[in-house]
Amino acid sequence: MSDALVIFTPSGKRGRFALGTPLLTAARQLGVDLDSVCGGRGICGRCQVAPQAGQFAKHGVSVAADALSPGTAVEARYADKRGLAPGRRLGCQACVQGDVVVDVPPESQLHRQVVRKAASARPMAMDPATRLYLVEVAEPDMHEPSGDFERVARALEEQWQIRGLQPDLEVLRDLQPALRRGDWRITLAVHRGHRDPTPRLVAVWPGFHAEGAFGLAIDLGSTTIAAHLTDLSDGSVRAAAGLMNPQIRFGEDLMSRVSYAMMNPGGAAEMTAAVRAGLRDLAADLAREAGIKPGSIVEAVVVCNPVMHHLFLGIDPVELGQAPFALATSGAVEAPARDLGLSGIAPGARLYVLPCIAGHVGADAAAVALSEAPETAETPVLIVDVGTNAELLLGDRRRVLACSSPTGPAFEGAQISAGQRAAPGAIERVRIDPATKTPRFRVIGCDLWSDDPDFPADQPVTGICGSGIIEAVAEMRMAGIVDASGLIGAAAQTGADRCLPEGRTHAYLLHDGSAAGGPRILVTQSDIRAIQLAKSALYAGARLLMDAFGVSHVDRVVLAGAFGAHVSPLHALVLGMIPDVAPDRVTSAGNAAGTGARIALCSRAARAQIEALVTRIHKVETAIEPRFQEHFVAASALPHASDPFATLRASVPLPEPAFNRPEGGRRRRTPA
Amino acid sequence: MSDALVIFTPSGKRGRFALGTPLLTAARQLGVDLDSVCGGRGICGRCQVAPQAGQFAKHGVSVAADALSPGTAVEARYADKRGLAPGRRLGCQACVQGDVVVDVPPESQLHRQVVRKAASARPMAMDPATRLYLVEVAEPDMHEPSGDFERVARALEEQWQIRGLQPDLEVLRDLQPALRRGDWRITLAVHRGHRDPTPRLVAVWPGFHAEGAFGLAIDLGSTTIAAHLTDLSDGSVRAAAGLMNPQIRFGEDLMSRVSYAMMNPGGAAEMTAAVRAGLRDLAADLAREAGIKPGSIVEAVVVCNPVMHHLFLGIDPVELGQAPFALATSGAVEAPARDLGLSGIAPGARLYVLPCIAGHVGADAAAVALSEAPETAETPVLIVDVGTNAELLLGDRRRVLACSSPTGPAFEGAQISAGQRAAPGAIERVRIDPATKTPRFRVIGCDLWSDDPDFPADQPVTGICGSGIIEAVAEMRMAGIVDASGLIGAAAQTGADRCLPEGRTHAYLLHDGSAAGGPRILVTQSDIRAIQLAKSALYAGARLLMDAFGVSHVDRVVLAGAFGAHVSPLHALVLGMIPDVAPDRVTSAGNAAGTGARIALCSRAARAQIEALVTRIHKVETAIEPRFQEHFVAASALPHASDPFATLRASVPLPEPAFNRPEGGRRRRTPA
Repeated sequence: MSDALVIFTPSGKRGRFALGTPLLTAARQLGVDLDSVCGGRGICGRCQVAPQAGQFAKHGVSVAADALSPGTAVEARYADKRGLAPGRRLGCQACVQGDVVVDVPPESQLHRQVVRKAASARPMAMDPATRLYLVEVAEPDMHEPSGDFERVARALEEQWQIRGLQPDLEVLRDLQPALRRGDWRITLAVHRGHRDPTPRLVAVWPGFHAEGAFGLAIDLGSTTIAAHLTDLSDGSVRAAAGLMNPQIRFGEDLMSRVSYAMMNPGGAAEMTAAVRAGLRDLAADLAREAGIKPGSIVEAVVVCNPVMHHLFLGIDPVELGQAPFALATSGAVEAPARDLGLSGIAPGARLYVLPCIAGHVGADAAAVALSEAPETAETPVLIVDVGTNAELLLGDRRRVLACSSPTGPAFEGAQISAGQRAAPGAIERVRIDPATKTPRFRVIGCDLWSDDPDFPADQPVTGICGSGIIEAVAEMRMAGIVDASGLIGAAAQTGADRCLPEGRTHAYLLHDGSAAGGPRILVTQSDIRAIQLAKSALYAGARLLMDAFGVSHVDRVVLAGAFGAHVSPLHALVLGMIPDVAPDRVTSAGNAAGTGARIALCSRAARAQIEALVTRIHKVETAIEPRFQEHFVAASALPHASDPFATLRASVPLPEPAFNRPEGGRRRRTPA
Repeated sequence: MSDALVIFTPSGKRGRFALGTPLLTAARQLGVDLDSVCGGRGICGRCQVAPQAGQFAKHGVSVAADALSPGTAVEARYADKRGLAPGRRLGCQACVQGDVVVDVPPESQLHRQVVRKAASARPMAMDPATRLYLVEVAEPDMHEPSGDFERVARALEEQWQIRGLQPDLEVLRDLQPALRRGDWRITLAVHRGHRDPTPRLVAVWPGFHAEGAFGLAIDLGSTTIAAHLTDLSDGSVRAAAGLMNPQIRFGEDLMSRVSYAMMNPGGAAEMTAAVRAGLRDLAADLAREAGIKPGSIVEAVVVCNPVMHHLFLGIDPVELGQAPFALATSGAVEAPARDLGLSGIAPGARLYVLPCIAGHVGADAAAVALSEAPETAETPVLIVDVGTNAELLLGDRRRVLACSSPTGPAFEGAQISAGQRAAPGAIERVRIDPATKTPRFRVIGCDLWSDDPDFPADQPVTGICGSGIIEAVAEMRMAGIVDASGLIGAAAQTGADRCLPEGRTHAYLLHDGSAAGGPRILVTQSDIRAIQLAKSALYAGARLLMDAFGVSHVDRVVLAGAFGAHVSPLHALVLGMIPDVAPDRVTSAGNAAGTGARIALCSRAARAQIEALVTRIHKVETAIEPRFQEHFVAASALPHASDPFATLRASVPLPEPAFNRPEGGRRRRTPA
């Protein structure tokens, strides 16, 4: 017998190979998905396989005990240094000696599937744009002069069948010392894009770079910048960190930053420099936290809203401040990270920015779409990402619509009398006893409710954050303290002695810390109005999408973002923030934009997918749509009168008081 | 008749077109080479044609007086503003009304031929990588949101059939204001490379950019940096300038700069910054001199030796200082000019560096090869580019060889007792009367010989430059002041009372300015030795190439570089610098490296051509070739004794004195 049958599971791929053929070679020839970084040198351990023994009736083979060559010294050294589980072999070392069945465990698959947690999520195959390759490079020869880079490119072609490697000037700087320190063995980080598959050299390390390759998934928000350091071999998050967007000093919200750019020559450049410096710090922090060298970060993906997008790219955002809200570019951007100020990582690291959907619906919304995949839904799903603006997506298999709605910052606790950011000391949850009208609450930083006997007497209570004010208003409505029009009743009307007169209106006292020198936290009439404006805008956006889609209800609602993770579906429904749907059909997607960034970081196919989807998403422009105003006005009530509300009415019996209107008649306000 | 015959000359292309078809449209459909930047809007005037009238028996047509539509208001405005020669029409305005013969003058051809002066040069078709296109861009629409860049790319595709335009972050910054200032009409500079034809946006201007597009051809020498500002529409040089290489403060010659990099941490980076700053200044100077905006410079090409190549690219040149002289990269480099520190020009301007041939034979030698085209020679041609190192090319249609020879700096006037750079006051030409042994000379900055009655008495004479010392030594040899071994005879032996004793040897007094406080300029015995070493090295390199080529003589010799332009062929032959050849077969190619840079700037095809040629050039390594030493030693005599020297002996009868050797025996020195 000069050859033998090799069967790989779970793929079932099979073929006959000459005795002595390494399993890695057999796998490559059969197109079996078996990873390797060192190219079969027994260094990286990525090609681990589990040979099977015994009878395999299904495959019609019987595997003998000596079907593979015995363990080698290389394997012993690998097992000694990095560990090798029982029953595992290195595919590059184990050679065929007889018919054999070999299982490729998930962690050894190059395109290993990563199963995501969210209900809507598809499993994702690891397919990062940047991968590592160990090569052995020919030494220079005076008689055949060629550059070191040219010999590296030839080695990559000969040893990995990757042709046409392009140099990068910054990486060339490291190449000669790395080759010589590694004794002509070098690890290359090579980027191949989803649109331009030209292999580009991103970084080099002498010898085998055991630390691996990492990517940054960056969610660049107006207020906070969050980043996940992700292992590009398996998609796992190795560190997470966030920081306040350093641009805040130029303006709290986006429009004030656009104004700053308009009013101050060089203002846009100042803000660009600020956010880029923030990203550099964040990258360094994450590397430190994960205990890796910053140079092992070989790629980054950024998602952000359109104004942040322009400011990050170094483009003046002035056009985004006025109709028709023209983006300088809406397409995905790929560039050397250093061109975007992200230095200190791998010298040739590339940065990918997801495409924007429109002038008000940015790459962050695209990332949410990538994460939540509305285009795969059987029945219409509404995805709501609430920030200073809310971005809404409504879609199913047939089509996907998007709009942005000017909710203002009330949902983030801004423009609320006692409002504050979600930080320790902020009231984040509220319950009001319908009988006694007495509140209890939880504050960030303490797991106990305020009526718990163990609630610390000295717990600081500093204000109320976005989810807190939403719950407070909804609870006030359910307790009969606020009527359907949003009016707070007097103590005599509501039976709540916490309803205190305040000018011509009333305010509800949530917490009085004044005895201990703390603040009195009230929900005022103008707080209710601010929340009404915000929720009306959000609801009107959703209804506008439903009109355009031609549906009168949606099957499920996904709340994305930090806000979505903290707000209770019931309270959101009571407020009328979102269209009526069974409370159990409202789910939180967590940081969907950040998840979308990680998906794009780990998968070139996902980048192609979101770029294609974005061109298919139909944008509905709220600013110029008369029906938006109609929906907005109609949505003012708590909850508003639009049908159908059967589900909600069945689950939450709402009292129907109607308090005197001190202002003398209903005031209509429309968003700016 | 609904259509008519249109014949274009000189191409002879012809076709029938519907009446009313503009000539530009007809030309495009027939593939006639007719230029246009504005795309047929009557703005750029590039599509000028000369309609012919009368009988055309050859073509079988008779052209009526009204074969074309009458002149339009657009043409009248163009003629008024920018002038239109009699008989000329704008091809985009003149429409077919009957059979017509239309001549496309050379200046209206897109790929116009540029005829080069040098004997060896081929005519070159203009084919620059970066061209201008005027486009009209759709305005943004809230209902169909798309980025401004995406609409620009669509306009380029629809109006110029150029698909897939890629943005550049720096250019994106200018895009929105330019579109709005130009009322949605914009001129784009678009780069398409010879290897990667992806169109890339290099610059934008509001409306029609009448100034045009320019490129820099840069010859980055160790001592001087020379650049030509070239009009990319016709290849003409609009300004030329040079400056001393600011790296000189780190070391006069290349090896001292390599040493500086080795001895000083950060030294390479300092030198990189210095040369890049020099280039920035040079670009600004050239734009000012030509009266154009620096932003109209859209491309640059750089040629240089390997050490300058690495220092310019930001790569430590340490490996070039020691065997095996490995280049970090030998291939051509194309990158954004700003990545190489060349800012202040068009934001997305691209820079191309020619490939290097080997660790001692750089992109400057490749540029010489591109300019002189040895691969097209019928019989072997030797091309000699003399600097601190000499690069030599020997080739014909069959093959091309290259080597570098360590001549040292003597040919540049360094290491010569009275030596100096070629600058005002330097003796550059020398004649010695064979009868009287009296010298006369010319100095840089004065057109008169020193024995002219009008030669100014106060003319400063400060030293002797490279061409001056070569002529001096050759003239001394022809006048019998120096013997074949290089020894200067005593006054009694030579009959020249200017032969003054100097230690154990003699020196020849060329000029005595001491009476007026000036220097005494002598040619000393050690000067002769330095020139002998240099010329022996040069000659040995040439002979080594001839050995490898298998020829005993060459058909012609081309002297390249400033040195080649100033040295007289006869004197070079008398010295034995170059192999024996009839003096009229020695030509000067002027600044061939600079010419090569301009060729590469104007023609993508030329870039492909030199990249292909470089891979074919066989490098002969002098440092490790024993025959180099043999040739070197044998070449020491003036002229040396190698045969054949028949030609030279016939044209220049050399006296054959042999002076006493004060050192007592021949000293052999070999180059380091």
